[in-house]
This record gives sequence, structure tokens and C-alpha cells, in this order.
Amino acid sequence: MDQLKDMIREVKDFPKPGIGFKDITTLLRDASSFNRAVDLMAHRYLDVKIDIVLGVEARGFVMGAALAYKLNKGVILVRKPGKLPYKTNSISYDLEYGSDTLEIHQDAITPGQRILIVDDLLATGGTVKAVADLITNMGGEIVECSFLAELSFLSGRKKLEGLQVYSLLTF
Amino acid sequence: MDQLKDMIREVKDFPKPGIGFKDITTLLRDASSFNRAVDLMAHRYLDVKIDIVLGVEARGFVMGAALAYKLNKGVILVRKPGKLPYKTNSISYDLEYGSDTLEIHQDAITPGQRILIVDDLLATGGTVKAVADLITNMGGEIVECSFLAELSFLSGRKKLEGLQVYSLLTF
Repeated sequence: MDQLKDMIREVKDFPKPGIGFKDITTLLRDASSFNRAVDLMAHRYLDVKIDIVLGVEARGFVMGAALAYKLNKGVILVRKPGKLPYKTNSISYDLEYGSDTLEIHQDAITPGQRILIVDDLLATGGTVKAVADLITNMGGEIVECSFLAELSFLSGRKKLEGLQVYSLLTF
Repeated sequence: MDQLKDMIREVKDFPKPGIGFKDITTLLRDASSFNRAVDLMAHRYLDVKIDIVLGVEARGFVMGAALAYKLNKGVILVRKPGKLPYKTNSISYDLEYGSDTLEIHQDAITPGQRILIVDDLLATGGTVKAVADLITNMGGEIVECSFLAELSFLSGRKKLEGLQVYSLLTF
């Protein structure tokens, strides 16, 4: 796992001064690291009943799609406003400054479906909490929220209390 | 192939009146269609020397990541401005109204690398032409531009003249 962690680059002062950004693109571009990360995450779900994988825009699409393929599932997309062409349900949530909105197609899931939520990074957890609420409101069952990496010092798990949370790598 | 085509929904009047938008999310969410599409696209490249797969934000991340995984390659991301944390190269290109810019990390590729460009849809070809120019300027060799679907009446192939172009589905 340490080898995989070493493939994530820290970029200083992004997106603003004082923040060290965990850049997963260096892991993704390395064939063996990317494939190993997908395999390790997928391994956790091989014997779990999952109906569909959900990827959160945009980096969540990368791990989400690869995991869905590996698990032989379909993939649904949660996107920024205005990107999905069909009728959508949406949810707004607070950021440190201001707020953000996410959308999902109204027919993306059916009540009772068991959904694996995938994103690249668990930071404060605000985005994935909103996604989880959106899915729950539509009658979906969340199997787990699954991340490539977690910034544990930001306590995202606290915001996701009551949900199963997994991260492959922890900083 | 007709079965896969039938999984793509046409949404009327998106993003503006008079346009029929090809919505691939209905294909992606269907496990067997998504997995079959990835397998069919990957099949074409099993015996081709590819160093890395490039996904174009954001829907290109879905097919790009799944293909990269299937082909046992890494995946690099071309993104909208301000999304990539490290030093970037960028390219601007004209749209019907106004212009757009795409970015890639300066160290995402090395000269001579053989790159498979993946996106969901070939429409007018403007976006992928810009991506191809960006890659070529960095010394990358483009193996092919590969799409889940192509809107042939928009003549995107013409804009991509001189490049190998493939699409799994044609409308």
C-alpha cells in the first residue's frame, strides 16, 4: 500500500496557498499502480451484492468506471448542473464558501437498488454526503462509499456517519 | 451493434432547441451493454502497441478508464482549465460561439509515447482535434482517436484528417 501512496504526488498551494493537494494523476498514469488500485478496491466487493456503481464527477468517473467494468456492473454518473441531458434530481450542499449543486438522472436508479458510491478522494466528505442523500431520497440503498484515498485529518468519515466508508489509501 | 445503439437515448432539445442529444448514460448504466462496449473497443487494441490511454473530460474519463484497465495501461486526463493541480500545457480552440480551453499536466506524457485518445462521442471533432494538437505538440504519438459513438452527419472525421479514427457505434 505504501508503494501506491508514493505514487500520489503532493502539489503545494493548490487550489490555494497553504493547501497541499493530493494529486492522484501520477498514480492513474502508472499502468501497474492504476490496475493494482482497481483490483484491490474491486476485491473488496467480489462477494458483495451490488447492482450498480456510481461515479462522482469528474475524477470519480475514472475509478468508478474501472471498478464497474471489473465488477461487471453498469455505471451511473452524478454530475455538475446542466451536464445531464434528461430529467434530473438535484441536491445543493454547503461548501466552505458558498454552495454547490449535483444532479443525477431521475431514472438512473430504481428504488431498492444496491449502489456502490465511488470517488477519488475523501476530504471533508461534503460532496459524497450530498450524493448519499440524493441516492437515499430516490430509494437507493448505499452499499458503501469507496475512495481511492482518504485525508483522515479532515474527518470526512464523521460527516458520513451511518454509512459504510472504505478507502484504499489513508493519509 | 444495433442492440448497443438502442441503449443510447435521444433527448430532444438538449442542450438547445432543435438538437437531439445522444445520451450515453442509458448504455453506461446497463451492465451488459457497458461491459460489452468496453470489451469490443478494447478488442481492437489487444495487439496494438499502446503506452497509455488518454481520457477527455468528463465522459471520456468513463470509457477511457475502463479501456485503460482492460488493456492494462495507465490513464491520463485532459481537463477543463483550473482542474489539474500541477504545471500544465493548454490549448484553446474555437466553438460555434466563443472558445474553450483544455489542459494537460506537463509531465503527463513523454515524447515518443504512443497514446490512445478516448472520448464518448465524436460530433464536430473540435475537442478531440484540440487534444490531438496538444499531444502532438508535446511529442506524443497518437495511435488512434477512439469513440463510443460517432454522429457521422457532423463530419468530425474531416476535422481529424490525418489521424486514425474509430467509433464503435455510428449514427
